[in-house]
Parts: sequence; structure tokens; C-alpha cells
Amino acid sequence: MVDVKRQPRSRPETLVRRREIIDAAVDIFGAKGYSGGTLQDIADQVGMTHAGILHHFGSKDALLMEVLEHRDHTDVADLEGQHIPGGIELFRHLVRTAFANARRAGIVQAFTVLSAESVTDGHPGHAYFQERYRNLRAEVTAAFEAVCIERGVTDRAVVADAAASILAVMDGLQVQWLLDPTAVDLGRASEFAIEAIVTAVVAPTAPAVAG
Amino acid sequence: MVDVKRQPRSRPETLVRRREIIDAAVDIFGAKGYSGGTLQDIADQVGMTHAGILHHFGSKDALLMEVLEHRDHTDVADLEGQHIPGGIELFRHLVRTAFANARRAGIVQAFTVLSAESVTDGHPGHAYFQERYRNLRAEVTAAFEAVCIERGVTDRAVVADAAASILAVMDGLQVQWLLDPTAVDLGRASEFAIEAIVTAVVAPTAPAVAG
Repeated sequence: MVDVKRQPRSRPETLVRRREIIDAAVDIFGAKGYSGGTLQDIADQVGMTHAGILHHFGSKDALLMEVLEHRDHTDVADLEGQHIPGGIELFRHLVRTAFANARRAGIVQAFTVLSAESVTDGHPGHAYFQERYRNLRAEVTAAFEAVCIERGVTDRAVVADAAASILAVMDGLQVQWLLDPTAVDLGRASEFAIEAIVTAVVAPTAPAVAG
Repeated sequence: MVDVKRQPRSRPETLVRRREIIDAAVDIFGAKGYSGGTLQDIADQVGMTHAGILHHFGSKDALLMEVLEHRDHTDVADLEGQHIPGGIELFRHLVRTAFANARRAGIVQAFTVLSAESVTDGHPGHAYFQERYRNLRAEVTAAFEAVCIERGVTDRAVVADAAASILAVMDGLQVQWLLDPTAVDLGRASEFAIEAIVTAVVAPTAPAVAG
């Protein structure tokens, strides 16, 4: 959901090795968090030395950034032309993403733990997640603006709150689903909530709670 | 939002000391996470020894449980009679809670980090958060059922997804707000999303996204 960066030019076997390390880091950070998971854990999983990991990535922080960018690649991998659609298609894409996430618990777990850890003091992922949410809110806001124009909705005061809320509900459902996979249907609940929030923007009604 | 447990009988000065340690633990776990924060960090903040903390709480895991229960006490502290209301009043209570949370970043940060950390392997908070979300979903589901009966809504298939979504959006907005407090209005966005989800249950309309 952010810019797809170019891979550095490397030999094919180096790229394969880097990908193995990133996959292992997704597993370890998902299982233990960033502060709990060590480079040695990752090295053990791929049968390398600690120094070997550092040779490929330089530092644990740098490896974390690669893991986060890998997640963004995964998000857009299914999209034709690898770009994020706009307007109502963006919301359909988010629903499809939620159903796809229900089939990849490892990376969802890593992302859930890392994003929450990133609010702690001095976490290396802080700036990444701050910018990621800013970019995502801007994309969702733009999609709302487009849908509002298309459907003649003039009251757009709630669009900023709606954009933050759509991303929030997807994230929050992931926590509950990871804790209790049989109690929460990640795809279906995300679809319900996205539909509810989009409807509140494009077809507002009298308040049910505040009323 | 869970049962309020009785405090153990202790001398007043012991209770004051325990409360100081819990407050420090909220700060430290919020700032560093549970795996990153140490008992020594907490001891330093209250001017005690590591052994002194263990004397009061027995273990780091036990202290974590006290911190989590303290948060639940804080949630109900403002309620008359310290019980959670039902029906539409529950949703109003959740909106008020979101506005109150915007004035207590420390405990929100601790809770955000601890709940996400709890999805990692073997985390001592796992069972607590699993049960907490089960209880909360049951309470919100019961409130939806009551509102549906009151308003003559017969299609209640979405109630389970709506209950999970309301809790999810409140949690997810906390992450974005902690990362970027000026970009996200925690109270207002939570109110918008709760209103949107309740409306989708009690006054369903034609789908805006799937349609």
C-alpha cells in the first residue's frame, strides 16, 4: 500500500537467500515481537550464522525495515499492474485484503505486533508506521472524496474520521482474530465494518447512538 | 469492563506502595512493552529495589496481571455503581470511554502494546486478552440484541461481526492516535465509527461497497 521500491541489483542466489531471511524474520518477529526476537533466532531458522544475517542486512533495524517493506509488496502482489485502485474499488480491494489476510496468519501476526510495538519510545519502526498510516489515510480519504463526488454527497466533514476508522477496524479485528481464530471471522467482519463505514459516509442517516 | 475483583486486605501504606508500583509499571510497559520493560526499570522509577517489587507482586507476570486489572478498574471508575450499562447506553459509554482515553495516553499506550504483544507465542497476557475480548464481545452482543428487540430489528446475523468491529475500531484508532496524536481525533473518530456500526445493525441499507 506504499510505493513499491526497486530491489537492489544482486545475484539471484543472494536474492533467494535474502528472501529466506526475510521470511524467517516474519516468523520470528511474529512469534516473539521485534524486541523479543533475536538475530540469532532468525539465523537458527535459516541455518546461518548471526554474522551471515548481518552480512546481508547490516543490522536488526535494517532487517525490520525490509520485513515491513516485504509486507507492502505482499499487499499489492495480487493487484493487476501492482497499483492501488481508487474510488469504490479501493474499498473492494480492502475487503479482498482482509479475506486474504485470514489465510496468512504469520505476516498478519508480525505486522500486528510490530505496529503496536512501534508506539513505544525509540522503536525503530516508529517513523515507518507513522508514515504508513499517513499515506494509507490519504489514499482512503481520496477514495472517499471520489465516491462522494460520484454519488453527489456534499457533507464530507466525516471523511477523515472514516478513513482512519476503516484502517483501524481492519487492524483491531486482526488482534481479536489472532487471539481467537474460531471466534472472529476476519474477512466477514472486516467486510461488514468497511461496508458500515462507507455507508455512513455516502448515505448518512439520523444518529442511532447520539440520538 | 470485566468483573471488579476485591482487593486483598492489606495495610493502607502497603496499598499505597502497590498502587505506586502499578502506576510505574503502566508507564514502563507503555514506554518499552512488556518484553522490553524490566522490573529494574520499574524499581528505579519508584525508588525501590528489584527485590522490593518482587516482595509486593511475586513475579513480573503477576505484576502484568495487576496492571491489566487496574486498567479495567479505571474503565469503570466513572460509572455510577461501577457496572457497565446495557442496550444503547453501552454504546454511549464506549463513546465516553474513547473521549476519556484521549486524556490518558499512558495507560492507552500500555494497553495497546500489551494486547498486541499478547498474540505472540507464550505471552503471559494471552489468556487474559483472549478472555477479555470474549467477555467484551458478549457484552456488546447483548447490547445489540437488546437494541434490536427494542427497535424491532429482526435480522441479527451481523450482530457478532458488529460487536467485534466496535471493539476493533476503538483499538485500531488508539494505535494511529498514539503514533500521530494531531492527525487522528481519538474521541471524535471513535464516536463516528461506533455510530456507523450501530446504524448498520439497527437501520441496514442497500450495500454501498459490495453493491
